Amino acid sequence: MKVAWIGTGRMGAAMAARLLSRGISLKIHNRTAAKAKPLITMGAEWADSPAIAARESSTVFTMVTGPAELREVVLGPRGVFEGLARGGILVDCTTSSPGLAAEIAARGEEMGIACLDAPVTGGDIGARDGTLSFMVGGEAATLDRVRPLLQIMGQTIVLQGPPGSGQHTKMVNQIIIAAGMVAMCEGLVYARAAGLDLARVLENVSHGAASSWSLTNYAPRILRGDFTTGFAVRHYLKDLRIALDEADRMNLCLPGLALAKQLYAAVAASGGQEDGTQSLVRLLARLSGRPWESTGPG
Amino acid sequence: MKVAWIGTGRMGAAMAARLLSRGISLKIHNRTAAKAKPLITMGAEWADSPAIAARESSTVFTMVTGPAELREVVLGPRGVFEGLARGGILVDCTTSSPGLAAEIAARGEEMGIACLDAPVTGGDIGARDGTLSFMVGGEAATLDRVRPLLQIMGQTIVLQGPPGSGQHTKMVNQIIIAAGMVAMCEGLVYARAAGLDLARVLENVSHGAASSWSLTNYAPRILRGDFTTGFAVRHYLKDLRIALDEADRMNLCLPGLALAKQLYAAVAASGGQEDGTQSLVRLLARLSGRPWESTGPG
Repeated sequence: MKVAWIGTGRMGAAMAARLLSRGISLKIHNRTAAKAKPLITMGAEWADSPAIAARESSTVFTMVTGPAELREVVLGPRGVFEGLARGGILVDCTTSSPGLAAEIAARGEEMGIACLDAPVTGGDIGARDGTLSFMVGGEAATLDRVRPLLQIMGQTIVLQGPPGSGQHTKMVNQIIIAAGMVAMCEGLVYARAAGLDLARVLENVSHGAASSWSLTNYAPRILRGDFTTGFAVRHYLKDLRIALDEADRMNLCLPGLALAKQLYAAVAASGGQEDGTQSLVRLLARLSGRPWESTGPG
Repeated sequence: MKVAWIGTGRMGAAMAARLLSRGISLKIHNRTAAKAKPLITMGAEWADSPAIAARESSTVFTMVTGPAELREVVLGPRGVFEGLARGGILVDCTTSSPGLAAEIAARGEEMGIACLDAPVTGGDIGARDGTLSFMVGGEAATLDRVRPLLQIMGQTIVLQGPPGSGQHTKMVNQIIIAAGMVAMCEGLVYARAAGLDLARVLENVSHGAASSWSLTNYAPRILRGDFTTGFAVRHYLKDLRIALDEADRMNLCLPGLALAKQLYAAVAASGGQEDGTQSLVRLLARLSGRPWESTGPG
């Protein structure tokens, strides 16, 4: 199976590297060519555009920043759909909008190209370890054809429904994380203000009803004073915008999601766009007049 | 070691039952005597007041509704401190206020009684299975004396600091759960509105960055339409009030906690006081004009 991979940022590069390490030959393209270098060293072949990468492939993966970039690399000039032949498969792993996923699938159907929206959860750790969770929208038969590839990158692969359903499921995932991050960061701000030893607090609260992936993975980084990504605030804000747009379209009242979006907007406004999502704790500490940095690492 | 147990509600009864099953002889008292019946059948001895239960005991556990009830059973007429002799130990497992814990410990010190605040997390499941997490405030030497008893009921036992530190840690725990429950319920409301199959969604989101104890334990109950406790809304509201009072005293800005409190106030106002905390999903669904019940169990 000839495979193309478009988008070699943090997540895309880690996922593509797993395919390469299992002997899959990849044609790759990325907006910023330099970021593709490590994959080329591993044996991937560079293509000058998504169309060129797609031309000699039967399956194309895309993993780009968001809906605008996805529209460009799939539907735009020199995009995937200019190169991919009839009978080809597009698997989009970008976290993007359900509406765009449906639009791409409809266009693909006209051209004889089968499309899946297949965003992932599990973070940079999951991408490296091949333990991602794939949320898939599209046809079962299409999924069956690419399942062996997805299994190299992920442990959980679930067909959620028609095109867009994978993106909707990813929005559910991001909504659950949103106010959950607010909750975790508020707990840590309270703990420090109360004069508790944060490491000891985590021993307790990580073993009960407050336990979560976020607490296990982000709280220790916060205690070390590590606010690098992980998952960058600007990417998360993009996801929250899509989720709020979709919720608004459905007339849903989701006050926790709206609050989280506003708080992350404030994180970004104060220069934290490239920081990891765990840096929310610094905003909340500052709002409480107790800057996180000034009081030492706990 | 002669042990008294005051407060045999859902959590207290389950914890006391574990002590009885390990051959510890218990004197028990409860405001509503009927709720103590099953423990008496298991061999516990009824006492007509906390003072009487404490009189012949060296260690007294309290597990009552909240600060008002705790003040009454410890410091009030016919309370524990009227019965417990010099050299005795009071272990309070109630979720209560840090200030009251410090007040009780100070009064105890005057009377030669050592006091621990030792609230728990892990839910009704943890209480039955003996996997609770104890958050302890008080003296290390006192904790060492009662540790063998706590180990019958819990897996994690952490001394957090001076009197009140156990309660502060429990507040951290409840704060993390607060907006976390909002997040989980909003995710489920979105999922249903988007036409997704909720069981399939959980397969995905339970295996990634959105995973949590709440999601694992409450989402399946929600999908079955089970809104019974678990943990009753009125108890949780009491905890959120304590957390907000403490946060206010420290001038903290915790908007997620405040939002969760307001939403749970609305759940209670619409008659849901005795429902489990997972019933928040019904409020959010109703606010979005999509009553949870009307659309079937997903």
